[in-house]
Amino acid sequence: MAHSKQTLATAESMAHSQREIAVSEFFLKNRHLLGFDNPRKALLTTVKEAVDNSLDACDEAGILPEISVEIAQTGARRFRVTVLDNGPGIVRAQIPKIFAKLLYGSKFHRLRMSRGQQGIGISAAGMYGQLTTGTSTIIQSKIKNSKVAHHIEVQIDTRANKPTILKDEELAWQPQFFTADKDGVAQLSKEYTHGTCVSIEMEAAYIRGKLSADEYLKQCAIVNPHLCLHYRITVLEAAGAAGATGAAAVTAATGQGKGQGAETPASDKKPAVAAGAAVAAWITFERGTRELPKQPLEIKPHPHGVELGMLMQMLKDTTAKTLKSALSNDFSRLSDRAAVEICQRAALDPKARPAHIAHRESEALFKAIGEAKLMRPPTDCLSPIGEDQILAGLKKEITADFYTAVTRSPEVYRGNPFQIEVGIAYAKPDASQDVAAEDPVRVLRFANKVPLLYMGGACAMIKAVTGVNWKSYGLAQPRDAVPLGPAVILVHIASVWVPFTSESKEAIAHYPEIIREMTFALQECGRRLSVFLSRRRRQAELERKRNFIEMYLPHLALGLREILALNEKQETQIIGKLHKMLERTHLET
Amino acid sequence: MAHSKQTLATAESMAHSQREIAVSEFFLKNRHLLGFDNPRKALLTTVKEAVDNSLDACDEAGILPEISVEIAQTGARRFRVTVLDNGPGIVRAQIPKIFAKLLYGSKFHRLRMSRGQQGIGISAAGMYGQLTTGTSTIIQSKIKNSKVAHHIEVQIDTRANKPTILKDEELAWQPQFFTADKDGVAQLSKEYTHGTCVSIEMEAAYIRGKLSADEYLKQCAIVNPHLCLHYRITVLEAAGAAGATGAAAVTAATGQGKGQGAETPASDKKPAVAAGAAVAAWITFERGTRELPKQPLEIKPHPHGVELGMLMQMLKDTTAKTLKSALSNDFSRLSDRAAVEICQRAALDPKARPAHIAHRESEALFKAIGEAKLMRPPTDCLSPIGEDQILAGLKKEITADFYTAVTRSPEVYRGNPFQIEVGIAYAKPDASQDVAAEDPVRVLRFANKVPLLYMGGACAMIKAVTGVNWKSYGLAQPRDAVPLGPAVILVHIASVWVPFTSESKEAIAHYPEIIREMTFALQECGRRLSVFLSRRRRQAELERKRNFIEMYLPHLALGLREILALNEKQETQIIGKLHKMLERTHLET
Repeated sequence: MAHSKQTLATAESMAHSQREIAVSEFFLKNRHLLGFDNPRKALLTTVKEAVDNSLDACDEAGILPEISVEIAQTGARRFRVTVLDNGPGIVRAQIPKIFAKLLYGSKFHRLRMSRGQQGIGISAAGMYGQLTTGTSTIIQSKIKNSKVAHHIEVQIDTRANKPTILKDEELAWQPQFFTADKDGVAQLSKEYTHGTCVSIEMEAAYIRGKLSADEYLKQCAIVNPHLCLHYRITVLEAAGAAGATGAAAVTAATGQGKGQGAETPASDKKPAVAAGAAVAAWITFERGTRELPKQPLEIKPHPHGVELGMLMQMLKDTTAKTLKSALSNDFSRLSDRAAVEICQRAALDPKARPAHIAHRESEALFKAIGEAKLMRPPTDCLSPIGEDQILAGLKKEITADFYTAVTRSPEVYRGNPFQIEVGIAYAKPDASQDVAAEDPVRVLRFANKVPLLYMGGACAMIKAVTGVNWKSYGLAQPRDAVPLGPAVILVHIASVWVPFTSESKEAIAHYPEIIREMTFALQECGRRLSVFLSRRRRQAELERKRNFIEMYLPHLALGLREILALNEKQETQIIGKLHKMLERTHLET
Repeated sequence: MAHSKQTLATAESMAHSQREIAVSEFFLKNRHLLGFDNPRKALLTTVKEAVDNSLDACDEAGILPEISVEIAQTGARRFRVTVLDNGPGIVRAQIPKIFAKLLYGSKFHRLRMSRGQQGIGISAAGMYGQLTTGTSTIIQSKIKNSKVAHHIEVQIDTRANKPTILKDEELAWQPQFFTADKDGVAQLSKEYTHGTCVSIEMEAAYIRGKLSADEYLKQCAIVNPHLCLHYRITVLEAAGAAGATGAAAVTAATGQGKGQGAETPASDKKPAVAAGAAVAAWITFERGTRELPKQPLEIKPHPHGVELGMLMQMLKDTTAKTLKSALSNDFSRLSDRAAVEICQRAALDPKARPAHIAHRESEALFKAIGEAKLMRPPTDCLSPIGEDQILAGLKKEITADFYTAVTRSPEVYRGNPFQIEVGIAYAKPDASQDVAAEDPVRVLRFANKVPLLYMGGACAMIKAVTGVNWKSYGLAQPRDAVPLGPAVILVHIASVWVPFTSESKEAIAHYPEIIREMTFALQECGRRLSVFLSRRRRQAELERKRNFIEMYLPHLALGLREILALNEKQETQIIGKLHKMLERTHLET
């Protein structure tokens, strides 16, 4: 029984126990930071990280994405997630680091809108699989100009944050995508000749609903109308009946795929689907458009978004020989003329060595930059969803009789361009429902076209929604809460750097500039909703009054007829006049 | 004007741009993850990280902590934070890494309750100061058995996550603590002969209120009654009037400290307080007790909290020669006998080499461990606040007529022992206030005795509070919300590893085991509150009825007297009888 007693610490004893912490050790212990708090969320996070990577790769390479996602239960509490894309593929040498090293990637050191940005996600999913099942991440990839594909199995050495390669083979690549034909039978779509397939086995749980991989994929299809997505989930009929691993042969989904064992690149020992599994059919989310989204461009930092320390670092790192060229080369929106003006304002020589300035006069330079009038950052680095696509997406999601969408102009936080979009769909309230008991509106959150399902409570989007006074737009709203009503509110932020509240990228940090833009967009949609709702209320009121007149007029007629002893013709005349008069006086008030 | 156009990417071009991301680069870009989202929060976070470190060091060394915190405005948007403690000090060689390297420290690789756990906080504060002002972190430290103190100034090389030492000097240590004497004049407290002082200048903003450093320090004093804390904040009279840096001489707070310039270890160029500053007096939070809190012990991982991947890693890393000794040495609650039983159950040789098992039979071993009946983890690794201290703390914080506190028995999540404590204080509702307009109760959140001020929306504590049905305990509660009422609810989690939702350590992740324990503790306090409230309601009702009788009886008497023509004596008799009768029948219903 090992249980160490402790004596009081001294500076010396403390020094002895101080050491470096590998980033992989840190995240292994803090795996909830990466979205692996619980088995259900682990499944969603893994699917999300893999699909985000596939979409980014296809978008960057200008390929119309076709992605297939398979979730297959392999034991009582185990699932294998396999995601296959028709992207550009990954060169062999990069595969181990991309899939088994945290903080490694191509998206961090640039200013360009993409789904991934940290270089953590997919390696973290593999690390979680390894932690909970001891298995490796299996990758197959083929690039365009190569004859062979690579099959690589990696684990992450968590003490060093480095990949350990367990298998490294070449193999013939077979196009492995599915498209459902008219009979619902999946067929391999033969046109795909390159791409990447990643497969991870992990401890997980599958529960349908608002926080499931299903919901993520559905929302993904809504905001990525150019994506063709195939999805299949296979759960064990009696979960736990089959052994956790080493079960019988793969039960493939369809005739075409069967026998080849190609669909899931699992190693021999770990079949994708255990015996006794309830094999589901593939679901396909078809493309809404074959048009590729606008290709966002990479930009350089805007001078007004750079902090003093960062400016000093940039001056040290620059390859430019003079201060003037450092300013005009390394920043966006800084012409040669503006650079010279800034130098003059700071009383610095435009020909000075940048590194020299970094050490001594950076503060004067920083001040001069802050005072310079410059164009706002370029915004072609952003690729918003667009009002039309938001409306189309909402129409898919909710049957409503009012839809509206707003795409705001780009704005800037900490030098990073960002753009907010909001859409609202409002359904006719169900007459059978008690209006007071209405549910909160559903808020769909997206960041760089990625659905955000968890952590709404911490998200700037929910903060913005609750901050708007919805009562003035005709919706009920409890204090500090989301408004009530049969509505869906969609919020999207597009940015070269989305400030998430944690590495799991589930909620947007509360930057005031961002919340302000969201508020403006929500208010604009709110005003439009208000016009619609008050028009509808007026119509309903009119309708009610008209019904009232229609109902009581015959009784009135009968009374008048008796009192005044009218004949039928007189009665009709009088009633006709009355009807018109009542409508005029009554309905106009 | 630099603005790069992009062509479509290929696997090769993508491979070219893939590279490693230093953890410091990552957090520099994501500084909101560390609590540096905005200038106000940056100030709080810096104070918090420094004070937490000081308290941990004193607790570990068994020293009664005396800490002085000074916040001094040095420019329109600049502040210098200086925190001085009487802790054990830091050996010279460790100072640069502790203050200028992320993920470095003594607390991560052990299972023991402490405030810090990540090895990020204070280096992150320094990095933020460096980023926003270009200045260095200044440290002075003296350890017990050394004659001299060290003055070191460091910056962090963010590309490499390594310290850059800018100054490294020896100097004579002067005790620099303040205690306010009866006249409110601060005096150096001479008994302190070792400790650490850290000073960071940064872009910041000071705003009083619920999210301020003041509030943090106040709550800190509540849950750390053994702490003597001195605090002073100095703001510029006309902020921005004085130059941001390079202003005139230090304006010290008091006669004693003045002239020596010893109080703040700022370098010559950066005085602690700029000219024109409104110099405030020191505030002292006195000790409530001179008794040190229970010293928490370090434990080894509990077998039931170790995941398969972790087990494999431990078997690889162990220094033990046999499987049996690896099991009994490296885990808590595993006796030799239990280790042998587990080996038998897994059909493994107790004398097998651990590393060999790691590769081949770890899954069988893992299963056998899971099935073994073991004692729960030892809980002397935890040091709860205790029910008495919580009550004392609440009594300081809120004037109420009902107080209660519950310290639950320790429980376990993912093998980590944790313990939940809850306290409630309920004040008499102000009669002048509309009851329907009552405010939500105030929830004070603490983790390992550290106040949590931000991100309540994302915190398991708020989730637990909103999840309890407070209506059944007599409090109004909107749906999915914190209950309403003139009350304070205190929640504390003590654990060897607190699962925070982000590196800034502001909210607790939603582990079901943790939320369940919080719920139980809240319900227990709720039941006690309910007893109190219903007794008070009954008394109020009695009072009301009694008043009713008192008010109407004279009128009744007058009527009876007239009707029955009673004399005064008869009237008094009858009224007396009536009074008793009414009280009996009326007040007992």
